Amino acid sequence: MAELVSSETDRIREVRVTPVAFRDPPLLNSSGVHEPFALRTIIEIVTEGGVTGLGETYGDDGHLADVRAAATRLTGVDVWDTHEVARRIREVVDGDTSRGRAASSGVMTGSRAAERVLSAYEVACLDAQGHAIGRPVSDLLGGAVRDRVDYSAYLFYKWAGHPGEEPDSWGAALAPDGLVAQARRMVDDYGFTALKLKGGVLPPEEEIATIHALRRAFPEHPLRIDPNAAWSVETSIRVGQELEGVLEYLEDPTAGIGGMAKVAREVSMPLATNMCVVAFDHLGPAVAEDAVQVILSDHHFWGGLVRSHLLAGICETFGMGLSMHSNSHLGISLAAMTHLAAATPNLTYACDTHWPWKLESEEVIAPGLFHFENGSVAVPTGPGLGVELDRDALARLHEQYVSCGIRRRDDTGYMRRFQPDYDPTKPRW
Amino acid sequence: MAELVSSETDRIREVRVTPVAFRDPPLLNSSGVHEPFALRTIIEIVTEGGVTGLGETYGDDGHLADVRAAATRLTGVDVWDTHEVARRIREVVDGDTSRGRAASSGVMTGSRAAERVLSAYEVACLDAQGHAIGRPVSDLLGGAVRDRVDYSAYLFYKWAGHPGEEPDSWGAALAPDGLVAQARRMVDDYGFTALKLKGGVLPPEEEIATIHALRRAFPEHPLRIDPNAAWSVETSIRVGQELEGVLEYLEDPTAGIGGMAKVAREVSMPLATNMCVVAFDHLGPAVAEDAVQVILSDHHFWGGLVRSHLLAGICETFGMGLSMHSNSHLGISLAAMTHLAAATPNLTYACDTHWPWKLESEEVIAPGLFHFENGSVAVPTGPGLGVELDRDALARLHEQYVSCGIRRRDDTGYMRRFQPDYDPTKPRW
Repeated sequence: MAELVSSETDRIREVRVTPVAFRDPPLLNSSGVHEPFALRTIIEIVTEGGVTGLGETYGDDGHLADVRAAATRLTGVDVWDTHEVARRIREVVDGDTSRGRAASSGVMTGSRAAERVLSAYEVACLDAQGHAIGRPVSDLLGGAVRDRVDYSAYLFYKWAGHPGEEPDSWGAALAPDGLVAQARRMVDDYGFTALKLKGGVLPPEEEIATIHALRRAFPEHPLRIDPNAAWSVETSIRVGQELEGVLEYLEDPTAGIGGMAKVAREVSMPLATNMCVVAFDHLGPAVAEDAVQVILSDHHFWGGLVRSHLLAGICETFGMGLSMHSNSHLGISLAAMTHLAAATPNLTYACDTHWPWKLESEEVIAPGLFHFENGSVAVPTGPGLGVELDRDALARLHEQYVSCGIRRRDDTGYMRRFQPDYDPTKPRW
Repeated sequence: MAELVSSETDRIREVRVTPVAFRDPPLLNSSGVHEPFALRTIIEIVTEGGVTGLGETYGDDGHLADVRAAATRLTGVDVWDTHEVARRIREVVDGDTSRGRAASSGVMTGSRAAERVLSAYEVACLDAQGHAIGRPVSDLLGGAVRDRVDYSAYLFYKWAGHPGEEPDSWGAALAPDGLVAQARRMVDDYGFTALKLKGGVLPPEEEIATIHALRRAFPEHPLRIDPNAAWSVETSIRVGQELEGVLEYLEDPTAGIGGMAKVAREVSMPLATNMCVVAFDHLGPAVAEDAVQVILSDHHFWGGLVRSHLLAGICETFGMGLSMHSNSHLGISLAAMTHLAAATPNLTYACDTHWPWKLESEEVIAPGLFHFENGSVAVPTGPGLGVELDRDALARLHEQYVSCGIRRRDDTGYMRRFQPDYDPTKPRW
């Protein structure tokens, strides 16, 4: 067997980078509202042996430029040598001071540009490794400890439709009853067993009312709220105390490790974050202050699946819980998230996903792989990530990228088109 | 390619556990003196596909019993599913309250029995994985970032020979000149570029004199001393201050995280440990107190190579340096240590090894793999660990185990045969 997998055949021959856009509903958050299209970048690495590895990452133009710059440096690297992949990417992205931009998604500020670029390529390398040896990616991470991975229903305040368009199938959700109806559909269609509300949109009292309405409608479902740091320390403490015994965790009520630490001392539920701890050098200060009790990992900005395993091990070692964050994403990311979650024993919370907000027709992978049942999907068992790229679909979503005109996510700018005085300054309350 | 490596062929069909003994010189430490034989256990796992994976671990009888108990539970497990290997081992070792013994080597107290058992099997699984796909173990850890791994000269106070036997080729070393001569031979024969003195044997003033003599004889070599917690906090501070500017790091001068923290506040060099931080749950307290600045990793008790990578990542994340500890070992362990060190970017110190103290004829792997040049060995490039088991040699060392009568390491008991009032109570000074 050994002869068949030589280091030559597993060297990278070609890298393809394709930005895509897919339809996204007008979901509200503390920075504004989702634009009509969400952007992603699809990575394909092709080895000398003809194996293709897939990755998916952000589509903002600054990040796309970094991804493309890195692509030119990876030819000839062995897909098993992810240390060398990382070294070259850091050289390109960190070494060029015109790069290393802050992520433009608003909420990822503070994560490292090089880690974001590495993430996409590391997943593609693991996919290629898995294809080369006929093993799923979860096996490359020590083996799946569960056959299915739980996700949560990601609830949003939203408009009925994008201004000037017909209402989407979800309709408006701007008060408790609308959110309960949205949750009901999510639970009916997907079986989700945990509910997360994106907050920071309405005054805290209204969002507390929504949480209470959800609790009444779904007495057994763990509930979370994430206002993306829209609240002051004082407001966060007040909301946390009002929702005592109701929330599974309170996510990023306020900004910064110092602010979170102050809130943590005054509320009973765990505080979770994907905003104030988004890079390894944030962990020391966060642990020292006991600022957060749950980290929402995200392989897209922590440097890939193996680096996310390191984060998981740090959480276990320092007594923090582990959950998983999501941005709007396609099927390659869902596969990577699922393999990672399956092979991470201490990932015990249901993971976030924006999956239900995506139209079934807007996808780059061949259909039929993922079916939600009881809020979970089966871990793919095929080689690598277990997904197959649909080239026609990729071409379509790339055409959509070209024609949609959006080049970076700007929830605030889009909101201001309809509400010119919109001010996303935080804390808002 | 994928078809050739099915999950069936990589399942464990058989596990062989063989205790061995090899000659060891009378090396002195703070607990007594090395007995005439050191014990190890050699693990072989054989897959359904006929691939063999090798591991090497401690040979003390309590640990051997745990290793054998675990062996019976591993049949049928996929060698890629190290999470399942770990789960079953923890069930056997932690679940049986008659097991889970403290390590009997004296200095590993506090490490976890299950992690020690897992270590041996995890390495064997990685070796089998590497053989199955024709890749060195370093590739399974993200790729070697260096072609050669640096080791340090491990200097010991020692007797000329075991009592009643002829002097060994090294002769006595009980004063500065003897240690300098020993270091000279090690440097001449192996090219070591760093020197470590096992201390805690003579009064601190004599050991300080030895360090100064080594500094004069080897002005460019980084120096370390490790008294295995034989000193009080006060003595540790005094020695640390007297050796300011002389030591690369001061290793385990005193016992416990609290004691080390007190010393760390008063001395200028980094404090290193393989005694007070030997399990993941020791890291939180150590970080909180800034008790140690360098961790000496050791895959034999941290749970294997992937868990050692987690330790490495924690060191990097929390600003601690990383070195590597050694007990008396054979070639399988040297291979595993070398692959791990090669694939750990932040392992920047020369690793410990007892290798020069072992007779060339006392080995279980086929000869010729390891050659020290400039204190380093080349990372094996063959599949898996890159070592081949010499079955005749294994049988010979097993016969030696049977006949030598030693069943657990007991440096203190052996010392008391010649010095009945020997008292290893620490702190001694």
